[in-house]
Amino acid sequence: MSTKQAIKEIHRELGEDSISTDDEDLKMHGYSEWSSINIDRLPVAVAFPNSTEEVAAIARVCHKYKVPMIPYSGGSSVEGHFSAPFGGISVDFLNMSDIVAFHPEDMDIVVQPSVSWMELNETIKSSGLFFPVDPGPPVCGSISVMDAEQLLITITQAKIGGMIATNCSGTNAVRYGTMKDWIVNLTIVLPDGRIIKTRKRPRKSSAGYNLNGLFTGSEGTLGFVTEATLKLASIPQKTGVGVATFPTMRDAANAATQIVRQGIPVGAVEILDDVQMDVINKMGATGRAWKELPTLFFKFSGTKVGVHDNIEDVRKIVYDNQGSDLEVEKDQAKQAVLWSARKEALWSMLCMRESGNEVWSTDVAVPLSRLPDLVEISKQDLENLGLFGSMLGHVGDGNFHETILFNGATERDLVSKCVHDMVHRAIEMEGTCTGEHGIGLGKKEFMEQEVGEGSLSVMRGIKLSLDPFWLMNPGKIFDPQEL
Amino acid sequence: MSTKQAIKEIHRELGEDSISTDDEDLKMHGYSEWSSINIDRLPVAVAFPNSTEEVAAIARVCHKYKVPMIPYSGGSSVEGHFSAPFGGISVDFLNMSDIVAFHPEDMDIVVQPSVSWMELNETIKSSGLFFPVDPGPPVCGSISVMDAEQLLITITQAKIGGMIATNCSGTNAVRYGTMKDWIVNLTIVLPDGRIIKTRKRPRKSSAGYNLNGLFTGSEGTLGFVTEATLKLASIPQKTGVGVATFPTMRDAANAATQIVRQGIPVGAVEILDDVQMDVINKMGATGRAWKELPTLFFKFSGTKVGVHDNIEDVRKIVYDNQGSDLEVEKDQAKQAVLWSARKEALWSMLCMRESGNEVWSTDVAVPLSRLPDLVEISKQDLENLGLFGSMLGHVGDGNFHETILFNGATERDLVSKCVHDMVHRAIEMEGTCTGEHGIGLGKKEFMEQEVGEGSLSVMRGIKLSLDPFWLMNPGKIFDPQEL
Repeated sequence: MSTKQAIKEIHRELGEDSISTDDEDLKMHGYSEWSSINIDRLPVAVAFPNSTEEVAAIARVCHKYKVPMIPYSGGSSVEGHFSAPFGGISVDFLNMSDIVAFHPEDMDIVVQPSVSWMELNETIKSSGLFFPVDPGPPVCGSISVMDAEQLLITITQAKIGGMIATNCSGTNAVRYGTMKDWIVNLTIVLPDGRIIKTRKRPRKSSAGYNLNGLFTGSEGTLGFVTEATLKLASIPQKTGVGVATFPTMRDAANAATQIVRQGIPVGAVEILDDVQMDVINKMGATGRAWKELPTLFFKFSGTKVGVHDNIEDVRKIVYDNQGSDLEVEKDQAKQAVLWSARKEALWSMLCMRESGNEVWSTDVAVPLSRLPDLVEISKQDLENLGLFGSMLGHVGDGNFHETILFNGATERDLVSKCVHDMVHRAIEMEGTCTGEHGIGLGKKEFMEQEVGEGSLSVMRGIKLSLDPFWLMNPGKIFDPQEL
Repeated sequence: MSTKQAIKEIHRELGEDSISTDDEDLKMHGYSEWSSINIDRLPVAVAFPNSTEEVAAIARVCHKYKVPMIPYSGGSSVEGHFSAPFGGISVDFLNMSDIVAFHPEDMDIVVQPSVSWMELNETIKSSGLFFPVDPGPPVCGSISVMDAEQLLITITQAKIGGMIATNCSGTNAVRYGTMKDWIVNLTIVLPDGRIIKTRKRPRKSSAGYNLNGLFTGSEGTLGFVTEATLKLASIPQKTGVGVATFPTMRDAANAATQIVRQGIPVGAVEILDDVQMDVINKMGATGRAWKELPTLFFKFSGTKVGVHDNIEDVRKIVYDNQGSDLEVEKDQAKQAVLWSARKEALWSMLCMRESGNEVWSTDVAVPLSRLPDLVEISKQDLENLGLFGSMLGHVGDGNFHETILFNGATERDLVSKCVHDMVHRAIEMEGTCTGEHGIGLGKKEFMEQEVGEGSLSVMRGIKLSLDPFWLMNPGKIFDPQEL
């Protein structure tokens, strides 16, 4: 009843096109075919604000009627971040996709939440600057994919709003850090409709609590991010890509950790298992055949001689760990071909799906030295359960992913057990249940084991101080204590 | 009365040596001769816990009697962070200075709050790892200084606890970021005595609110940090130091910002003005004579060829900005000599003090492109007011410092005006009132102009959720709304 009232009021305040109750819209904003978790309930409406002020108006109305609000940007998250377990209104930033200001001289840029990181980099390319956080495997335009896949690709491009919400990272994180490291300031609409700006535009500050760091990764549970100033980095003078195969995942992981441990400034170091390489070959998205062995992919970047130097250092470590000779490309176009296997890994897995197949994609992170153990045990586990899954990891951060295909409820239960066991194992190894995907609905149950009841109660206290009625994206990260 | 009761109870619970009311102790923990601000009131007692559990016991007692608690480690902060405007008990981590665990294979280390960053690096040197945040100008053992100065040096070494409290940075920040970027987890005693640990030991995580980022920089107003796991970096294969002079501060600042803008990965780039260079010559702490001109000091680090490459790129930009030929040292011992001027800058200023002289050291940060303007205007301002002050900056972050000597109340008023004007100017340029010193008592008045009443109210809400009786380091960063 009160939700209906809220919808009516938003309609009246912001006009015809500001809010939709269309079935297709509700489904798109409450269900995701690439999420590890889906629920039956959907949002009751989807609002499409055009400005920070309109977001504030929506929040004021929802606050008045105590209606849940769920921020939505790219819709590419995999832990049910934008699902609506308590109904309420999904707020889609579709119409807030502008670059508001670009300050190349200060190496920063002001953007709205629906700017995609790939569009952003395309737009500012000529300035010699780029935004280095790269959460999703970028889509290669040249590959042939099914129509349905094209749709998927269009939909699942990560956008700045969601990237802030999950503190995302990706392949470049080993060199450039995660989303929280690139935030200069945030404009936020609080649950009661107040608008705040966390900071002005210094690249560095020690003035008061670090609200940038708090809101980044808070998964939309504390407020709406409606604008962000992001730091930019200089595009490296020279880049290169390298690939090497190994007899075992342990050898590959050992090589990767030694590279990081020796401080060789690789741009990225990614591990893919034999299953993943096999899938890439089967889907043929990369235009070449790969050895179906554990493989490391490297990005190199820096000055011309620096890149050469790093390549030779990496070559030696690869060799010392039973790896193949390092295949290297420095030519720009050929680099893309060599990197394409890494780029197409997830999409190739998704293309493997047959009718009725579902996908479960998950991530964990552990201290560097524990990664080889975790990878080995988890791989064995997949095999023991007879599941079809591939492994891929940002191995320089101790972060890795499993993508498992399954069919039907019985297999889902097996996958769930497999994921749960892996997460518990990661936490026992002093790691985290998620290195970059976030908690959402899917990983709430692990929070207490990971951070303890004390830290959880501090988080709940912070949540309550900003959102006493638990209206912002309720049901995500953790529940109120009494539940 | 209640404070007396609390002291008695701590005494009883933790033993004879656990708490002192000695006048010297109180003065040392409530007054600082290198702080920009001092007040008449002192803490009523100083507690010396030996463990997290003892800190928790102290907090429980103080919570019971509603007695303020003020964390204390190195005592080197400059904005009155450890002063006691409401009395209460200073909690000195003197006896908590252990390295608890060292995990070279995971590139992290677990430390207590009173470990100094210099001791830490000395201890782990042979592992090939180091902790890169360097807040204070390290002390050069070979220089001859007055006895009083020696004392000052001993006292003012920054320690991990305070470095976390102020989110400190220093000369390496342009390459390695600030304190918040190097925290894996924190053990915290909350104001009511509960103990929490923010995370396990993953290098990267997206699990729940980023409490590391919130407590880092919260200046002891949310709880006691009693243990921290810090990330470590690999010691670079090769290093170098470079120095160049410029006709004006604007030329020097322009050169520095171009170097950062082009992405040349310098280890540090520091600006010192002519006054500062003159002072260094006068004090003779470096064993050589410097040109009394605006000067840039560089650190280079990386692979052998990488360092060579960076030096040549920097040399060109220096030349393009009217700079002198870049003087470079790659030999380890000679590097220290060349860097010594930067290292001794602050100490040389302090040595200049004559009887009755006081010192005011302050910092601000602005977007990169505004730094030359800010430096120029602020320098003019110092001269117009007839004040003796030097300038020094971490120019790659848009962060710079003024150190002003003065004598008596009239001059103090002038200095105060000068600092206030500079801070307002920095904020108007979209900067911050402090890049790395923190707010403490000294810069509270600028918080509203900088972050706005909305952000301040969010900070207050967070404070209240953790510390409803405002017991943790009260009077710092901001006051309760009703004040």
